[in-house]
Amino acid sequence: MRIARLETPTGPRHAVASGDQWNIVTDPFAAPLVYTGESIPATDAVLLAAIDPRLVVGIGHNKPGNPLPMQAWHKSVHTVAGSGDAIYAVRGLGTVNIEGELAVVIGSSATNLTLENAFDAVLGYTVANDVTNVDQCAIDQRNFQGKSGKNYTPLGPWIETEIADPENVATEVVINGDVIVNSGSFNLPSSVAATLVYVTSWLTLEPGDVVLTGAPGTDIAVQPGDVVDITLAGIGTLSNTIA
Amino acid sequence: MRIARLETPTGPRHAVASGDQWNIVTDPFAAPLVYTGESIPATDAVLLAAIDPRLVVGIGHNKPGNPLPMQAWHKSVHTVAGSGDAIYAVRGLGTVNIEGELAVVIGSSATNLTLENAFDAVLGYTVANDVTNVDQCAIDQRNFQGKSGKNYTPLGPWIETEIADPENVATEVVINGDVIVNSGSFNLPSSVAATLVYVTSWLTLEPGDVVLTGAPGTDIAVQPGDVVDITLAGIGTLSNTIA
Repeated sequence: MRIARLETPTGPRHAVASGDQWNIVTDPFAAPLVYTGESIPATDAVLLAAIDPRLVVGIGHNKPGNPLPMQAWHKSVHTVAGSGDAIYAVRGLGTVNIEGELAVVIGSSATNLTLENAFDAVLGYTVANDVTNVDQCAIDQRNFQGKSGKNYTPLGPWIETEIADPENVATEVVINGDVIVNSGSFNLPSSVAATLVYVTSWLTLEPGDVVLTGAPGTDIAVQPGDVVDITLAGIGTLSNTIA
Repeated sequence: MRIARLETPTGPRHAVASGDQWNIVTDPFAAPLVYTGESIPATDAVLLAAIDPRLVVGIGHNKPGNPLPMQAWHKSVHTVAGSGDAIYAVRGLGTVNIEGELAVVIGSSATNLTLENAFDAVLGYTVANDVTNVDQCAIDQRNFQGKSGKNYTPLGPWIETEIADPENVATEVVINGDVIVNSGSFNLPSSVAATLVYVTSWLTLEPGDVVLTGAPGTDIAVQPGDVVDITLAGIGTLSNTIA
């Protein structure tokens, strides 16, 4: 099932894809979902960031070959953007990287998850671009200067709730129409489940919180004007331009 | 003017102190404030965290004598608590510190503030306790393991909008009735204004966001059962017990 967040005259609302239309729901975390009876044709729909989270947790040191233990950090929710939004790369601060990542959207309150039950707390998955002023990381251990730019966390195009195996989601990064990287969550040294175990060992995740799982070799330097398309198999394509 | 956040039958609502009652307002960021006409006697009021922020920004290296440049980080909004709430210190992880700090509550959208206009964006000030698993900081550069515990950011008891000089707010920390530290924002190596300039040079702050300004020597190790009272002159006392 695809759950998107749409722009509507009454503000952002979540909706479920059905054929060529989006059917509005009252609450994407309700089980069962409650439909309002309103629909928007897919051709008219304006998709926003797939979720408006209270918390975005990023994962450090989860790149193939990195020998350091996994670490997490908090990324500003003000950086969240939708597919199609421009990313305002901060100028004069050295290299800006995009990072194509699998993002986990939490569906229910979760503390001290285990490898066995980690996915029970998950509503679904979306595509994330964890944009980073990578040259700042050396002088900014806490990832504040490196990760806080405007629209630095595109999330979208929607949440997919049915992913057969989150540990095996193929990821393709295309820049200006050229395939630059083919990788996937299977290349992450810490599994998606292990990441959720780690994060929830330190805090309780709540519905709507987002965990970025790290870049499996999908970190690529970009320039203003570049068009970045990140496709996760079974989910969709997140597309943004560097402004 | 004191603006509190109260528990009411219809959920949390902000209210302004007047004599021995709290007068409910529709929106603490509106200018002028709009009163609903409802009041709650002070003796009946249950005060919650003074604000429910979208973003909590902490400041590192802003302790007297620290030679490193100021750095910021994001703290989980799930850690926010009110005066009177128990702080659930994580066990078995070494020393837990409380840190008595002046917290800035942002009133209007703010980017690239200057030393001259930094306070124009401020709604008011409250007392913060930036609770920290201090032994984790050595292995957790990003302040995730050290700062994410339940109720690790008490904010309260209310927002005071009229502080003559935010750079000169005396801070007293009392533990179990004994005065442990007398200090104040005047002991911070980076001023409150400089902190706001730094933070807004990297991101836009929005109404309700909270900036913790750093501990001016007010970081103190605590034990389960300790009662921590942090008083900021002209604001009030934030009181919490370590659970």
